[in-house]
Amino acid sequence: MSKASPMDVNNKSCYFSLSVLENDWFKEINDGWPGYSINIQVEEILFNGKSDYQDILVFKSKRFGNVLVLNGIIQCIEWDEFAYQEMITHLPMALHPNPQKVLVIGGGDGGVVRELLKYDCVRKVILCEIDQVVLDLCKKHLPSMSSCLDDPRVTINIGDGVEFIKKHPEEFDVIITDSPDPEADAEALFNKSYYTDLKGALKQDGIACSQGLTPYTDLPFIRNLVAQCKDIFPKVGYATGNTPLYAMGTLGYLLFSSIPDIDFTKPLRKFSNSDLERMKLKYYNSDIHAASFVLPNCFRNELQDFLDT
Amino acid sequence: MSKASPMDVNNKSCYFSLSVLENDWFKEINDGWPGYSINIQVEEILFNGKSDYQDILVFKSKRFGNVLVLNGIIQCIEWDEFAYQEMITHLPMALHPNPQKVLVIGGGDGGVVRELLKYDCVRKVILCEIDQVVLDLCKKHLPSMSSCLDDPRVTINIGDGVEFIKKHPEEFDVIITDSPDPEADAEALFNKSYYTDLKGALKQDGIACSQGLTPYTDLPFIRNLVAQCKDIFPKVGYATGNTPLYAMGTLGYLLFSSIPDIDFTKPLRKFSNSDLERMKLKYYNSDIHAASFVLPNCFRNELQDFLDT
Repeated sequence: MSKASPMDVNNKSCYFSLSVLENDWFKEINDGWPGYSINIQVEEILFNGKSDYQDILVFKSKRFGNVLVLNGIIQCIEWDEFAYQEMITHLPMALHPNPQKVLVIGGGDGGVVRELLKYDCVRKVILCEIDQVVLDLCKKHLPSMSSCLDDPRVTINIGDGVEFIKKHPEEFDVIITDSPDPEADAEALFNKSYYTDLKGALKQDGIACSQGLTPYTDLPFIRNLVAQCKDIFPKVGYATGNTPLYAMGTLGYLLFSSIPDIDFTKPLRKFSNSDLERMKLKYYNSDIHAASFVLPNCFRNELQDFLDT
Repeated sequence: MSKASPMDVNNKSCYFSLSVLENDWFKEINDGWPGYSINIQVEEILFNGKSDYQDILVFKSKRFGNVLVLNGIIQCIEWDEFAYQEMITHLPMALHPNPQKVLVIGGGDGGVVRELLKYDCVRKVILCEIDQVVLDLCKKHLPSMSSCLDDPRVTINIGDGVEFIKKHPEEFDVIITDSPDPEADAEALFNKSYYTDLKGALKQDGIACSQGLTPYTDLPFIRNLVAQCKDIFPKVGYATGNTPLYAMGTLGYLLFSSIPDIDFTKPLRKFSNSDLERMKLKYYNSDIHAASFVLPNCFRNELQDFLDT
């Protein structure tokens, strides 16, 4: 596929960016959480423009390293990206006895792939990212996440994940959907049709994990989502973890499997302290794994009818 | 003690408030987290002024109910205050077999007292708040938290908590320090001298819990604090929980006791579903209690030498 050419609109006043920049601050204003905004002070704008798919801002922050913003929403920040990348990767990976072939839908920053390559058993990782411009910008500005994409075990497929999984039945041990929130193109990664195809692309004993939004703003949407998933997968789980610089500071992770007796709260793979050190894990450990499925009452009461955790 | 008279500075341009208000947004800008700020949209300013002790802002937000701000820092927001109030109260209360007499240092909003009064065994609650103006403003603008302060089991002491605990040796089953972060007067609630007096005011089998800051911004300070506490109390614990509208979305809770065999992670009092419903608990449950002591590696590695959890 030919390389998309981004339109860099730095200093071009004709462009109306979806990212709100005022004085030297980025303001994350979004309909998903009206009346609330996380603001990050900007040191330098590295890219502000559009690809064929989305509005993209990359900036160096004063205190938190480089920041990737898509359609006005923070996607990752160097300072705290470890918390999200580790959870969305190691929750499903620690539940699989021998994950060899893994698919990542989205995740063009490379953070999930970096975590996957920490497993010796992993032989092949396919990254299916729709937007070449995101890959190029991350390669340039987020090397601590993206440099792993040069690893020989990694294949990059530029294209639509929704179409990709339809064409690869029963192929993957683990599938991780590392997507933005369900707006614009990413909406297609949060519905029954997608989860049906996801099940089809997993091996019989496969495990999938998807970005699960934050219950503090999206509880009715999440409830509807897990209800739909429960019609498709015999086992559905929902965990949460800290994501300090994302809106509301907490993000959810959806787990799916067709293994009838799987207990998502009990990792098969338990990491010793030397494992944690070797893998440079700053957030995830085996106790965090189990604890992450424990939900506050206000979420548990809404979701428990559809969950196996 | 005579009632302090606040200076209400609404519309008085001579006053330089510590709270940053721009257009119709409150911006929580603070040296504790430079380069980052949570912003809340304002519907109406209810009070903006000073007491003898601090700068106070109360506003009605567009989406999250009323908000209390002290010295420019959000103290509580009606929408999510339950998460903090429930954790700082029920963590120590569920660990005590029969808490009858409880002291709250700070907590003038009444949220902790509201949670304490849910226990039939509680006979007396003393609230020791330094600032009458905070009490008056909360009574007016945060009735869902403060109305409980009229309960006959509650005694309000307007004064300095540091001095109060020195004069009440071995008197309390549970002591909760519900303070702002350690700036200005609240600094006195985060040092060895205070923790020594705290131990003195607790009965032999008493349990104390203090606001424990957020490890995402204050880890070196917290490390120093738990190290000091460990010199004083035989048992020290550190839990965390979601606080979506506070900076970084996660807050810590420090637990202290002289009971030699206490396991902070195992509540003596386990709440059934009907207990949770009767007590209207939206966050805390017995599984959350245990899970809240599980820390991400980056915090565990720094704190575990001084912790019994």
